[in-house]
Amino acid sequence: MTAYTEYLWFQTARRRDYVHITPQVAEIVRKSGVREGMVLVSAMHITAGVFVNDNESGLLQDIDQWLEQLAPADPHYRHHLTGEDNADAHLKNLLVHHEVILPITDGRLDLGPWQAVFYAEFDGQRRKRVVVKVLGE
Amino acid sequence: MTAYTEYLWFQTARRRDYVHITPQVAEIVRKSGVREGMVLVSAMHITAGVFVNDNESGLLQDIDQWLEQLAPADPHYRHHLTGEDNADAHLKNLLVHHEVILPITDGRLDLGPWQAVFYAEFDGQRRKRVVVKVLGE
Amino acid sequence: MTAYTEYLWFQTARRRDYVHITPQVAEIVRKSGVREGMVLVSAMHITAGVFVNDNESGLLQDIDQWLEQLAPADPHYRHHLTGEDNADAHLKNLLVHHEVILPITDGRLDLGPWQAVFYAEFDGQRRKRVVVKVLGE
Repeated sequence: MTAYTEYLWFQTARRRDYVHITPQVAEIVRKSGVREGMVLVSAMHITAGVFVNDNESGLLQDIDQWLEQLAPADPHYRHHLTGEDNADAHLKNLLVHHEVILPITDGRLDLGPWQAVFYAEFDGQRRKRVVVKVLGE
Repeated sequence: MTAYTEYLWFQTARRRDYVHITPQVAEIVRKSGVREGMVLVSAMHITAGVFVNDNESGLLQDIDQWLEQLAPADPHYRHHLTGEDNADAHLKNLLVHHEVILPITDGRLDLGPWQAVFYAEFDGQRRKRVVVKVLGE
Repeated sequence: MTAYTEYLWFQTARRRDYVHITPQVAEIVRKSGVREGMVLVSAMHITAGVFVNDNESGLLQDIDQWLEQLAPADPHYRHHLTGEDNADAHLKNLLVHHEVILPITDGRLDLGPWQAVFYAEFDGQRRKRVVVKVLGE
C-alpha cells in the first residue's frame, strides 16, 4: 500500500471564493504513482469546504448566492459573542462539506466529464490549507 | 490490498428519482472478495447524488419536496444563460452530496439496520453513471 | 494493510444533541497502530450524523437552530403516516451527513487546529451507534 500526502495553500483576495483545484489534485495523484485507490481532499479549516461540481462561472455565482440565502451572514449568531464574525462561514461549510474522496482508476482521477473539484472559501483573505492524501497501490 | 471497481448505469423515467441500490453495492462488495475495507459509491455527474437514508416511500417523497423547497427549479439562475435549465439539479446535488463511503467488516457492508443506499437523480431521462470502488483486503 | 474497527455507543438525554468525539476517534487511531491512512467515522442510523466543525458552545447552538430552520419538526411529513414522528431528523441527517473520513499522518489525526469531530443526534434518548474504521499501514 502507498500513502502519499501533500498540502495545498490558499489565500483568496475575496472573503468568499471558489478555486478550481482539479489540476493540482490530478498532479498529486500522478506523483503518488498510485494506479488503484482513492484520494481524500479535505479542508483543514471549519470555514472552508471542498466540493465537486461544474466549472461554469455562472453556476458558481448561483451557488454562492444560494449559500448566502440558506446560511446568511448576520450579526446575531451566538458564535459572535466570542468576538468572531464568521458564523455564516461555519454554516456554509456544513452545507457543502469540508471533504471529498475521489476514486483513482488506472492511475487517474476517475471523474465524470463535467466533474471538477473546488476549494470553497467562506472566510478568506488569510492563508488556509487543504490536505490531499492518496491511498492505494 | 485489493481494489475492485464496477460502474452502475441509470436512466430514470422521471426528471427526479431515488433508486435504492444497496443490493447492487452489496453484490459488488461480495464479488470483490474484500473482508475488511471500504467501498466508495460516487455519482459521476454533477446533477445526481448518492446518499444513505431510510427506504420508506413517504420519506423519499418528503425528501424530494424538501429538496425542491431548499433548491427550487427556477428559470432565473445565471447558469441558464449557457442554455442549460438544470441549475437546481446542481444545487440539490450539493445538498445531498455526490458520494458516500461505506465500511466493509467481515466481508459485508457494515450498515445499521435501517441504512439504505440511494442513487438520487435530479436531471434524469438520460443515461448516467455511478462508480463503485472497493478498497481493502 | 491494517484495518481496525471499533463501535461507539451514544444515548443522549436530549432529543437533539452534539457530542464532541475527537478524543475517542484519536484513541482508536492510536490503538490501530496505523501511521499513514484514513479513518471513517460513520453513524449507523438515519437520524444521526457525524460532522467536523468548531467546538464552541455558541456555534453549536447556532448550528442547532439553523438546522431546525432548514429542516423543521412538523407533524405533516408523509413519513409520519407510518407512525413515526421524526422525519425532520432524517432531513437534518441529510444536511450534515452521516459520515466523515479523516486523514491519518505520522500516526495521528491530520486535522487543522480548530477541527473537531461531532456526533450529531437528531432523535435521541435511545442507544445508537457509530462505526469507526481505520485503514492504512
